[in-house]
Amino acid sequence: MQHYFSDQRLTTGQTIWLDDQIGHHLTRVLRATVGDQLQLVGNDQQVYLAEIHEISGQRVAVAVKQPLHIDAELPVDVTIVSGLSKKNKPEWIVQKATELGAVQVIFLPLSRSIAKWDQKSAKKVARLQEVAQSAAEQSHRNRIPKVGYLPSLRMLEKQPYDVKLIAYEEAAKAGEETRLVTALRHLTPGQSLVGLFGPEGGITEEEVADLTTNGYLPVGLGPRILRTETAPMYLLTAISVMTEMMGS
Amino acid sequence: MQHYFSDQRLTTGQTIWLDDQIGHHLTRVLRATVGDQLQLVGNDQQVYLAEIHEISGQRVAVAVKQPLHIDAELPVDVTIVSGLSKKNKPEWIVQKATELGAVQVIFLPLSRSIAKWDQKSAKKVARLQEVAQSAAEQSHRNRIPKVGYLPSLRMLEKQPYDVKLIAYEEAAKAGEETRLVTALRHLTPGQSLVGLFGPEGGITEEEVADLTTNGYLPVGLGPRILRTETAPMYLLTAISVMTEMMGS
Repeated sequence: MQHYFSDQRLTTGQTIWLDDQIGHHLTRVLRATVGDQLQLVGNDQQVYLAEIHEISGQRVAVAVKQPLHIDAELPVDVTIVSGLSKKNKPEWIVQKATELGAVQVIFLPLSRSIAKWDQKSAKKVARLQEVAQSAAEQSHRNRIPKVGYLPSLRMLEKQPYDVKLIAYEEAAKAGEETRLVTALRHLTPGQSLVGLFGPEGGITEEEVADLTTNGYLPVGLGPRILRTETAPMYLLTAISVMTEMMGS
Repeated sequence: MQHYFSDQRLTTGQTIWLDDQIGHHLTRVLRATVGDQLQLVGNDQQVYLAEIHEISGQRVAVAVKQPLHIDAELPVDVTIVSGLSKKNKPEWIVQKATELGAVQVIFLPLSRSIAKWDQKSAKKVARLQEVAQSAAEQSHRNRIPKVGYLPSLRMLEKQPYDVKLIAYEEAAKAGEETRLVTALRHLTPGQSLVGLFGPEGGITEEEVADLTTNGYLPVGLGPRILRTETAPMYLLTAISVMTEMMGS
């Protein structure tokens, strides 16, 4: 079933007109007709069953039916911070991080970032926010991750998170299990976690030292060298496995 | 350090000429010079330190130095089977599955596959094998995953694996932990595992029923709907977390 987001708070029984963008998708791409059902998420993250009530041109009105017990969100709020990388990697990182449950994806320039956003950042972020929305629709999320840009590492260090991790190849194992697993084991529902990932060239020792003094823990992501776009997927999946799949 | 594969068995002290492709990469792309060091993996998966001994045009000879204690392989042999998907998704699946430790990636047509390979399959597989090789070099694997094509599900079902999984959204939780985690908990080093993933349209109930009678276990990969190219990455990461990161 199609899954869309509304910026309104929804209640059973109301009839509302959907955003033009959604209306266009339903009428022109999917050739939807009156009576078709879809999932609509309110601004309180509650998913409702909705039924197409009226179609006028590309505008679509739906009747909001009963709430659905769908919770596709990770128990912890995960922010992915990615050093500016080349080509279409940011699009890709946003799409996959959304599928895998991140609530925020922040891009920032690091020492070894070749790409520069500067004045383009607002336009880039707006484009990436669209990517996050369509990925959130496809993966049936309860919320659309927020995409952001920070001009410097200093500004990230000011932001509070319960658990702060840096993906760093050099990070050693801690006895029987890795630092990553040890850190994830102690997560409790509702906590916030940030994972920082370097650009293609990696993160510098100076940046790691700087972040460590600001409470960031360097963690390894296994014995294979992962590309800059693959590492965030690994972290998000590890969090899913340990908080959603392993029970408590 | 650069990481390459040799089809020979290597021994400390020998001097060998590298494949022309590697020689070209070293001389033309990286502008390597005599004395530069690299990692060279022998056909027994042993990694050696090697040093450029001679360069003649684009040909490069290296002196094989001491063996390096590098093991970047998962403790279990994981085969990813992917229903034929569209566009460049197969390239992408092979690249990421290689980074994440698969030893084999097999493509096959399933009921809902739109893409058809047929006569093109040999050419496709050859191209994808190159993708696997460069990804194995980049991620510093000990072996290059094998890419294959099977014309039918029936032929896959004949192949023996210790653990057989199907990624299936409908798969339910088993009490405190999911079926996926339960299956992975029982893995022992050296075992073989196959994970089957549907194409964009998903796998059909008939295919699931057919596979189940052949010993395949349907498992869920968390509450979010993952794209056909994302699901194999989730499985491989879950295996890495549970077999490499959590100790025993």
